[in-house]
Order: sequence, then C-alpha cells, then structure tokens
Amino acid sequence: MVSKRCYELGSARSVIRELFEYGNRRAGEVGPERVYDFSIGNPSVPPPQAALEELERLIRDSDPLELHGYTSAQGDLAARRKLAAGLTARFGHDYGPDDLYLTVGAAAALCCVFHALTVAPGDEFIVFAPYFPEYKVFIEGAGAAAVILPPKAPDFQIDLDALDAAIGPRTRGVLINSPNNPAGVVYTPQTLSGLGELLRRRSGELGRPIYLISDEPYREIVYDGKQTPWVPDHYADAIVCYSWSKSLSLPGERLGYVLVGGQVTDHDQVFAAVAGAGRRLGYVNAPSLFQRLCAACDGLTADLSIYAENRALLTQGLGALGYDTSLPPAGTFYYFLPTLEPDDVAFCQRAKALDLLLVPGSGFGAAGYARLSFCVPTPRIRAALEVFGKLAGEYGR
Amino acid sequence: MVSKRCYELGSARSVIRELFEYGNRRAGEVGPERVYDFSIGNPSVPPPQAALEELERLIRDSDPLELHGYTSAQGDLAARRKLAAGLTARFGHDYGPDDLYLTVGAAAALCCVFHALTVAPGDEFIVFAPYFPEYKVFIEGAGAAAVILPPKAPDFQIDLDALDAAIGPRTRGVLINSPNNPAGVVYTPQTLSGLGELLRRRSGELGRPIYLISDEPYREIVYDGKQTPWVPDHYADAIVCYSWSKSLSLPGERLGYVLVGGQVTDHDQVFAAVAGAGRRLGYVNAPSLFQRLCAACDGLTADLSIYAENRALLTQGLGALGYDTSLPPAGTFYYFLPTLEPDDVAFCQRAKALDLLLVPGSGFGAAGYARLSFCVPTPRIRAALEVFGKLAGEYGR
Repeated sequence: MVSKRCYELGSARSVIRELFEYGNRRAGEVGPERVYDFSIGNPSVPPPQAALEELERLIRDSDPLELHGYTSAQGDLAARRKLAAGLTARFGHDYGPDDLYLTVGAAAALCCVFHALTVAPGDEFIVFAPYFPEYKVFIEGAGAAAVILPPKAPDFQIDLDALDAAIGPRTRGVLINSPNNPAGVVYTPQTLSGLGELLRRRSGELGRPIYLISDEPYREIVYDGKQTPWVPDHYADAIVCYSWSKSLSLPGERLGYVLVGGQVTDHDQVFAAVAGAGRRLGYVNAPSLFQRLCAACDGLTADLSIYAENRALLTQGLGALGYDTSLPPAGTFYYFLPTLEPDDVAFCQRAKALDLLLVPGSGFGAAGYARLSFCVPTPRIRAALEVFGKLAGEYGR
Repeated sequence: MVSKRCYELGSARSVIRELFEYGNRRAGEVGPERVYDFSIGNPSVPPPQAALEELERLIRDSDPLELHGYTSAQGDLAARRKLAAGLTARFGHDYGPDDLYLTVGAAAALCCVFHALTVAPGDEFIVFAPYFPEYKVFIEGAGAAAVILPPKAPDFQIDLDALDAAIGPRTRGVLINSPNNPAGVVYTPQTLSGLGELLRRRSGELGRPIYLISDEPYREIVYDGKQTPWVPDHYADAIVCYSWSKSLSLPGERLGYVLVGGQVTDHDQVFAAVAGAGRRLGYVNAPSLFQRLCAACDGLTADLSIYAENRALLTQGLGALGYDTSLPPAGTFYYFLPTLEPDDVAFCQRAKALDLLLVPGSGFGAAGYARLSFCVPTPRIRAALEVFGKLAGEYGR
C-alpha cells in the first residue's frame, strides 16, 4: 500500500549503483587491488586546497547563527551577487542575483526546472541519447514524458533533423548535457548555433518558447585547451543548471544553481515557477555553509590535470591494445568506448568476469559502447590496462 | 507558459515570510531597535560549542574526498548506525541503520513520506489545525489532498471524534506535529494512546494501515522538566520525521531523517518507497559533512534554557498586561496568544502599526490567536513588553 512508482525507484538500484556495490563486495572478497572499478562518477581529485582553507576560514570567522541559519529560499543574497558577477565576467549577459536560484545540487536544479515548465501532465521534454538515466526519473516525476532521441554515433553531436521531427505541440523543453555524461562529447559552436536556429524557428511556429535546459556539471572538465561554449550565446531561452560537485569535488555537499538569465522569455514567471517548484518539493534553501563556500570559491577548480593525464593514458593504452580510441572524450571524466562486440551488455559481462567493471552503453540508451569513469587514481588505470589486454585477447585482438 | 501552481507558490510568499521581509524593510527605515519582530522561527541560540568544535575536527581530520563525497542515497552507514543506536538507547524499539533515511531537512523528509504513501491522486492525509501551512503545499505536491480538522481550543489536544469522522477510504495517513508549531502544545500520553487506539480500530476496518506521520523538529524543546512522548510507543505504524534545525540551531544546513521502525507494517516496502520518492524528487543524498556532524552530535542540544527564560518572561509579562497566558506553550519557541479581539488579522494589523510583528493564527487555521516566535534575544522581549502594553491599552486593558 505504497506508491508503486516510488517503491520501484527505491527498490531497484540504478545499473551504475548496482555495479558499484558489486565492486565493493568483490573487493572485500578478492582484495581491492584485484578489482578495476570504472563504474561510478565520484571525483577522485580532492577539493582545491584554497577551498578547504576557505571552509576553515568561514567556520572560524563567521557568526555561526548566520552561517548555519536559514537563507532566503533562492539563496543568500551576497552569495548570489558574487556568483552573478562571476558569470557576467566570464560569459557576459549582465547576470544579476535575481537570475540565480541556488539548489541542492544539479539534480534538484533539474527537478525544479522540469516541475516549473510542466504545464499539463504528458507535456514533453526531449532528451538526446546517450543520456544520464536519472533524467527520465526526474522528468516523469514532474508528470511529464521524456522523449528520447537515438544517439548520433560516432560523434554524438545533435541530429537536428531528428530533433525537428520530434518537436510537437506538447514539447516544453529540450535537455542537453555538454560536456556529456556518458559520451564525453562537447557540443561545438556549430551544433549549438544550429540548435538555436531550429528552436527559434519551431518556437515561432508554436507561438511560445521551447526552453533549452542545459545541464552543465562538467562545464570546466574539458581537454586540449578547449572551452565549453556558453549555451545562452546561441539561444536566448536557455536555462542553465549547474553543480559544483565535479568542479570543486564536493558531490556529497549538494550545491548547484538554476540560472534564468534576463534574456529568457517570461523571465519573472519562469524564475518564480522554479522557486515555487523548489518550495513544493521541500527544498527550503540550499545548504547554507556551502552556499557561502561555493560563492567564495567561484572560478576555482580541483586539479583537473589528473583527469587529463588519465584520459591520455587510456587513449594511448587502449588504442595500442586494439580498442577504438579514435574519438577520445572532449570533456568529462568518462570514456565512451566502442565495445569489441555489438552486444555491449555481453561485453561488459566478459569484462566483469575479469573484475573489470564497466557500465554498458545501453543503460544510457546507446548500445555498442561501454562507459569507463576514469576518475580513479592513475596507477589503477595503468594496472587495468593489462586486464583490458586480456579482454581484447578474448576477442582475438 | 509555466506550471500555474509552481508559479503561484513562487510568486506569493507565505504570510510569515512576507511579515519577516516587511520587518527587515521597516528596520531599515526606523532602526532595528524600534521593530519588534516575532514573525519567524529562526533559532536565536547558537549551535552548541561542542558541535562547532566537532565541525572543525571533522574538517581537519577527515579525508576531504570522503567527507565531501557522495554517500549512499539513504545516508552514510556509520552515521546511520550511530543514530540508530542513539534512538534505541533513548526510546527502545531496537532501531537499526536500515530504518533510517537521512534527508535534506524535515521538509524533505515529509515530502518523501507523502510521495511514498500516495497511491492514487486524491488520496488524503489528515492534518490538525493549527498547522504549519507548508504541510498543505507538500501534501498537494504529492498529488494528495490535505484534510484539515478544526482546532480544538483551548488546549489543542486532538479531537478524536472529529478524527474518527474524517477518516475514510481515501485516508492514507494522519500527520501530527508535537510539540506543535504554532500552538506550542505537546500531545499527552493520554492523547497519543487514544489516537493509537482509534487508528488501530480504523486501520482494521479498512484492512490496511493508516500511517501516522509524526513531524518532530521541536522534540527537545519542551518545558517544566517534561519529555515529548515517543509516538511509536503508542502506535506501531508511526513514521517519524526529524530535523536538527532547531535542536542544534543549524536550520540552514538542512539535515533530518525519516525513521521507519521495524514495527511498521510493510516496513521494507515503505522504506523503499520513501527512498524512491527521494530519488524521484532529486534528493541524491543529504549533505555529507552535516550527516557526519549530526551523527557525532546526536543527543547534544543548543542551550535551550534561553527559550525557557523567554517563555517565562512572556507568561509573566503578558499576563500582567491583561493577556490570557493561562496556557503557556508546553514546547517549541512559539507563544500562541489569544488575541484581544476575535479578528486576529485586525489585531495583528494593530500590532504592526506599533512595529510589533505577530503572525495571525488564521494563517495556521486557528482564528482568534496570534503566534509570537520567541526565539529572539531576551532583551528584545523585555523591550517589546512595553509595546504589548500600548497595544493592550488600545483595547482598554
């Protein structure tokens, strides 16, 4: 006598969590050095020293009643001012504190946006595979439907024709995630400009904006000296969801934001609806100490060079073993590797038998791939290459 | 083109918040010493020194990757073990770590429970006036309906006959909040035992449990050497929602829990549904640092004697001025004062004209009362008594 959907969500772990827990059990049996766990996206680089020092300073120098007290529901005003100024300095657009709604991480940010934009049950949000599977949970939790578009292999940029065909009268928004978990793709300015053009045309036809929801927890984790293009430069009706989980290596502290820039159609209504959704979902305010910390450390990142080193090691090492590494990830700490047989689940089973834990791409809506989270210590990757070699050997490579 | 309900919730502040913001503006105009703000329930006593020291210790001595990393969705196992042992030591019942789901505060705990227990749209949760107005927001957010029972003045214990009449085939749960915001009432063991008996009888008739949801953020704030009775002692199907916001004066950090004890019917299903609701609402895990802090400080409280002093001062001072203080609050830091005219909104308007900010009881479903939050510095209460005198004078007292 409980909610069927909630029960299902609470009793069935995600594929990723399942594999991660298996890895922990297995490590207990055979020793952690014998298990090569590439399952979970838990940052492996510590928070920057300056952030840890700022945390100590905040605790030492602040009035504890204020530091740990309620903030305004949208977040502490001084924190929002600092963050808005930082965004403006980096990206332009003249963002202000009333464009920012601080949230309990990016998951909360997305939930607030989906709830805010769902006008009637069955409204649709379009999502591109491969995609983070919780998106579907969040969208359906808002009473809307997730319309999943098939992956555009091998580069995983956007298939604009498929998107054009998928947009209909029930479309409320399009969700993108660039840098992308799991594909590692970063949308190019060309892709985003084509996307913007398409959405402007279709919004015009519908007589109302199709909002573009940009989930950006990996914004700073990009390689080869590249930058993640700023989505609102390409489409005015873009709502940005962010989290400091990966950039500052603080995923457990749950701090993020929704940015509704002044250029967004019906800005005040959208912003109020996001805040109202937060209220309805029980999000009183984002954790107060970390609001101040993230604002103070805005622009800082953990030492991301370690991820770059891991990526290079995998590209070189896996390539030498006969894996297809012709398209290394442009961002994130995920390698989305074409599997050595079409059935990615079977491939990952074979890997698992060697205690090499990879997540099948079909869990993300993209069969024929396996996701490797390379936010693990570099020596573990070196050690794992030997096992990858064994696995390739089983396929006659 | 946004969710109507979310927009309304985000654009209309609660009566309490509205008054609080007014107080801040007014303080800017006439000086903070001229405004007597009893509007908001923000703890005025700092967190206990031992908790602040534990916070520094945790930060100094822990591996930051672990301290700030993801925890299991239901909360860090060591933290849950410690909390379950503490609950068992205090209340018996042999609680275990798998009875506890750590949440982003009590609001999140309640939202998870309402979502978990709502089987079909229009299912009902019964709430007793006076009640914290966000309850209705959370219940409706889960797709259920709040059935509000009228207040039982003057003692605000439960009217069991009214409850009996209100229970029907759609009733999923009954929500209680003892010590109660705003009435300050603590349900007696007699009340709870009558409630338990009634709910057992009606559950039996329905052939399924009516769950009792006990919201207990003020559990430790009780006076005259009393203790808050432990609700699961009186009814097996009780689900306890807790928050450290008031006991440790950390309301901004958002840490609480749902306790589904082993005695709850369909324990595993209920627990899974609560966890599944958290996942669906975007609650990945409760903030990780404060999970550890609250577990380490379990049993500690801020110096609650200051609230007792404020309560005594108000009882004596207001009584001398002709206010009815014959039933001072048994718990919480709220005084629920009979107004000097039947129209509590008019009374609070008169008070507001004197810069004395009180929340009308009708905002909580109980006309004829005004709520005073006495979590303010004691000297402010002394100063305010003069203004209360002026107000009484206007009514010829």
